[in-house]
Amino acid sequence: MLRIGVIGYGYWGPNIVRNFGFAEGARVTAICDRNPSSLARARKNYPGLKVTEESRDITASPEIDVVTVITPVSTHYGIAKEALENGKHVFVEKPFTSTVAEAEELIELAEKKNLRIMVDHTFLFTSAVRKIREIIDGNVLGDLYYYDSTRVNLGLFQHDVNVIWDLAPHDFSIMDYLIRLKPLAVAATGRAHINSREDIAYIMVYFERNVIAHINVNWLSPVKLRTTLIGGERKMLVWNDVNADEKIKVYDRGVEITSSEGIYNLLVNYRSGDMWAPKVDQNEALRTETQYFIECVRDGKTPFNDGQAGLRVVRMLEACDESVKNNGKMVEI
Amino acid sequence: MLRIGVIGYGYWGPNIVRNFGFAEGARVTAICDRNPSSLARARKNYPGLKVTEESRDITASPEIDVVTVITPVSTHYGIAKEALENGKHVFVEKPFTSTVAEAEELIELAEKKNLRIMVDHTFLFTSAVRKIREIIDGNVLGDLYYYDSTRVNLGLFQHDVNVIWDLAPHDFSIMDYLIRLKPLAVAATGRAHINSREDIAYIMVYFERNVIAHINVNWLSPVKLRTTLIGGERKMLVWNDVNADEKIKVYDRGVEITSSEGIYNLLVNYRSGDMWAPKVDQNEALRTETQYFIECVRDGKTPFNDGQAGLRVVRMLEACDESVKNNGKMVEI
Amino acid sequence: MLRIGVIGYGYWGPNIVRNFGFAEGARVTAICDRNPSSLARARKNYPGLKVTEESRDITASPEIDVVTVITPVSTHYGIAKEALENGKHVFVEKPFTSTVAEAEELIELAEKKNLRIMVDHTFLFTSAVRKIREIIDGNVLGDLYYYDSTRVNLGLFQHDVNVIWDLAPHDFSIMDYLIRLKPLAVAATGRAHINSREDIAYIMVYFERNVIAHINVNWLSPVKLRTTLIGGERKMLVWNDVNADEKIKVYDRGVEITSSEGIYNLLVNYRSGDMWAPKVDQNEALRTETQYFIECVRDGKTPFNDGQAGLRVVRMLEACDESVKNNGKMVEI
Amino acid sequence: MLRIGVIGYGYWGPNIVRNFGFAEGARVTAICDRNPSSLARARKNYPGLKVTEESRDITASPEIDVVTVITPVSTHYGIAKEALENGKHVFVEKPFTSTVAEAEELIELAEKKNLRIMVDHTFLFTSAVRKIREIIDGNVLGDLYYYDSTRVNLGLFQHDVNVIWDLAPHDFSIMDYLIRLKPLAVAATGRAHINSREDIAYIMVYFERNVIAHINVNWLSPVKLRTTLIGGERKMLVWNDVNADEKIKVYDRGVEITSSEGIYNLLVNYRSGDMWAPKVDQNEALRTETQYFIECVRDGKTPFNDGQAGLRVVRMLEACDESVKNNGKMVEI
Repeated sequence: MLRIGVIGYGYWGPNIVRNFGFAEGARVTAICDRNPSSLARARKNYPGLKVTEESRDITASPEIDVVTVITPVSTHYGIAKEALENGKHVFVEKPFTSTVAEAEELIELAEKKNLRIMVDHTFLFTSAVRKIREIIDGNVLGDLYYYDSTRVNLGLFQHDVNVIWDLAPHDFSIMDYLIRLKPLAVAATGRAHINSREDIAYIMVYFERNVIAHINVNWLSPVKLRTTLIGGERKMLVWNDVNADEKIKVYDRGVEITSSEGIYNLLVNYRSGDMWAPKVDQNEALRTETQYFIECVRDGKTPFNDGQAGLRVVRMLEACDESVKNNGKMVEI
Repeated sequence: MLRIGVIGYGYWGPNIVRNFGFAEGARVTAICDRNPSSLARARKNYPGLKVTEESRDITASPEIDVVTVITPVSTHYGIAKEALENGKHVFVEKPFTSTVAEAEELIELAEKKNLRIMVDHTFLFTSAVRKIREIIDGNVLGDLYYYDSTRVNLGLFQHDVNVIWDLAPHDFSIMDYLIRLKPLAVAATGRAHINSREDIAYIMVYFERNVIAHINVNWLSPVKLRTTLIGGERKMLVWNDVNADEKIKVYDRGVEITSSEGIYNLLVNYRSGDMWAPKVDQNEALRTETQYFIECVRDGKTPFNDGQAGLRVVRMLEACDESVKNNGKMVEI
Repeated sequence: MLRIGVIGYGYWGPNIVRNFGFAEGARVTAICDRNPSSLARARKNYPGLKVTEESRDITASPEIDVVTVITPVSTHYGIAKEALENGKHVFVEKPFTSTVAEAEELIELAEKKNLRIMVDHTFLFTSAVRKIREIIDGNVLGDLYYYDSTRVNLGLFQHDVNVIWDLAPHDFSIMDYLIRLKPLAVAATGRAHINSREDIAYIMVYFERNVIAHINVNWLSPVKLRTTLIGGERKMLVWNDVNADEKIKVYDRGVEITSSEGIYNLLVNYRSGDMWAPKVDQNEALRTETQYFIECVRDGKTPFNDGQAGLRVVRMLEACDESVKNNGKMVEI
Repeated sequence: MLRIGVIGYGYWGPNIVRNFGFAEGARVTAICDRNPSSLARARKNYPGLKVTEESRDITASPEIDVVTVITPVSTHYGIAKEALENGKHVFVEKPFTSTVAEAEELIELAEKKNLRIMVDHTFLFTSAVRKIREIIDGNVLGDLYYYDSTRVNLGLFQHDVNVIWDLAPHDFSIMDYLIRLKPLAVAATGRAHINSREDIAYIMVYFERNVIAHINVNWLSPVKLRTTLIGGERKMLVWNDVNADEKIKVYDRGVEITSSEGIYNLLVNYRSGDMWAPKVDQNEALRTETQYFIECVRDGKTPFNDGQAGLRVVRMLEACDESVKNNGKMVEI
């Protein structure tokens, strides 16, 4: 029975506690938060657990096997390092770290100590993303043309990061999981209207094989949109994550070139066929993810959303920062 | 009674003929198309009209007062010039011309001859765009933050232009009409998947006062989207042009900064209030537009969508071309 | 070349003229309307045609082969009878007649004279209804459970009929075409709020084999709804006719009884699978229908939407009238 | 501190336990369920509470002040009676009882003993229903014309009741709360396809002042619909409860009669104006409701959703039963 210590009991922490609580082979034994009201809440919700304001009480405790780091991103590195040094496996909220260098150091440390790192890219455990991967792996879409994500809503402004670091990690990790092509370069533009952090940003990602991705993240949208278009040679897919039903639609639509004797004689035909919406189960992704992590730790397996996966996302974020600072200049990865 | 000659009877030409036919104070007297089957169609639909394969039969006819140019963009300059030189007013399909230089020359020629030019930016005559302008003019939205347009569908590939020249003129003319701020620079990225013309493009426009615009145009989308978000300090607006009802929604949503003693003490509050969908009449924009042009010609008035308006759009398109060729480099206007 | 005379040039008449105009093997030669402004409009739109205020100028003309009756329902019988007596084929707007007796008399007269009657149930020529019939014929849905139609909007109040006679003929003719079971009884409830004609009504139709249909028609709805659910043993279908795309969705959803040792041990399982939206072409139904009628007249074929089909609908309407008058009493067909 | 005993820990019971747990002035002290696996689940979720298979351990316990009855409807009467006889206040799941007689007896018993009864009509505590009541009370809609509810989905078949008893109590209680007119009669039609219980039903309710209501309940719909139209003389309202945002839309649409010299000279004008979607808070209705019940018990107040409210709903259900048995005959209330 793995003993889990949870550091951070703000917005997301309670979900972590609840889901590790359900996981077989594990139980949460301690909760830490620096905020007294969060701590009081933890105490009321879980009378039996140890609560503390000091992260060290968890990272250094001999009665903890796994440390989950659900704190602001600027603190991830410090807490995770402390945990690894004390021989704990770590489960870290996304984005993994504030810099590529921090991520690389933590990965190295975990390898040396033979410990597991898992970065909480929860979307990779949703039925929708799993189904899309199945569709792509089955070559239903054919060669990919583009990936276009709109992820906008009103708030939540984060004090320590901009909208790219807040929302784009979802897209970077999902693309990493789905597309599996090497990103070559990034170009990002952002604008800050409310304070000095960008609240709107547009990101281009250039992949191998002429595949292009575009990410629209925005904290100032009056409506919540979570729409991804994936265009392929054979079929095209729309993933609308705010739909309760019919999240994924696969369109038998596309373009066919029937003749190409020079560009002006090109015959371009549009194929406009049926649409198909596969059933998407309504599991709770975080439950699947926490159970999977327990198994990885228990069996010594490397999770697919490990430190390396987290590092790939941080690398994209760092490149975005550089591009934003340089007015949207293309930055190689 | 103004006598209208229509050059070009392909996809859009029949609408032009029909609407100038309805306009008071005008009648269509001749139709020209180089394509024999288009010409045969014109002959069948309008038995009484003169039809011809030769544009000169129209531009040089003493029995024509107004020439409408509904042909591929590369031919606009030549036909319009011929018409102006023969003393005809011209109504030109968007985009006005292929280059800034062509547009400037036509404008100068029309001024010298005291003739009217009107560029067919039909959207500016829709009830939806008129209502949004009314909302912006009433300062309902407050200071603008951003303008974000998604204009995607499957096809229609044009042989002589890319997706930017095909779809973005709508957005450029609408922004020109609604925002009325000076665009400072453009950055555009495009990709060609089917032939050598870009079929997907993302365009950033940088305006005065930190206002940013983003335009997503795509010929490879399985679904037709026509959605524009306009974010303002006070309220935010969503214009969904594919909705039959409720095309425009104004959200009493926004962000309020209630304290700002340094960035970390900033208190950002979200305002989430009612939504309001003003009634949008279902007029036919092209009918309004053609009638308006007849009045401009008759009364010697300069239409607001004149050659200068057309030129401003072409200037944006040229800048996009340069940016696309330079991997999304920011290009000043 | 069949010569068509159109009687009635109000709301629907111009569509009839235009579509018979396109039809091969026919041409419209005369238009009649009692309303001087409608007549003036006809004269302006079609300068070459004969126009008249007198229906007899059409029904009795030796230069007319087919009379189309696009007038208020109360006049259908008189005009159609006159036309048949003069040896003309007739195309009659829905509903066919005001009474069953009138319909039966017209059918008998046409048979005696070997003339064709076609009732304009346009929906039967839409791609959507054709596709649903194909699905039902392919036994995709399995045995039918129910048919549930919502057909509501704001207005148009008709002066001479109530909401049932205005809107329900669509549903009755569509059900007649799709379900092909014998209706056994009808029960209808209506309420009149604005004048003495019912503006809201709910209709139950009881078919053989325990199949039930429900029709909700309403002139006082703020939104336009055109939604039909068809529940079957195997699959279920939703037809949303106000959707531009994805009008028809077929759901692999249903109920399976896996055991039935007495009612309390019944194991009811829900099957919740994929959804499939077949492509529905965007043809103009009326063009297909008018062409089909020309062929029926030319070839001496009985159209499937003949007088008998029109009579079956009128029989349902009469039964509804009786039920409404008797507070929703069930009325046998 | 009121001590709550919860009888029934199946589908809805855990929500009751959780929400009474949050309520101030109360705590849950015991849980009862006859099903061993439900009981085991209660034991695991709430280690500190007393659990039992015997309802009498709760209804007769001197350590319980309030009994909540979250069991199948056929058992409500027996358990509630036992609780009232032992001096406990009762909170009963909807529908209140299986018969009018049972409800009347419980009400009388509670009055004699000065105890509170509250029937769990949760919808009356949602922000949506509260907002609609505010709109109706503000006379925004004017005189009501009709109330039309569609409440359909796939499953859940109940073993002991039909679809009317399962779903229509929501509509009956909501109408009772919103319309506040006396229902005069009911007519209901149902069909059973899967077993002997009706799985589809259509219900008409006739109110004073010519107001009509219609309820469509269906366990065999492939899609979940929760749409209510309320038509009034001045404005019209659509409540779509499956929408996350914009649940309520108020349309400035209606009909105006501008002249009425006899029915054929009636001038009916359609008013088609703006739409307004008031903000609807996302509270948890059950939390509001449980807190309200605690206050009623503490302060000796009669809740508005008391036994009488529950009785009014049961009376409608009984009338539906009678109507269904008599082929949709109108049954007076």
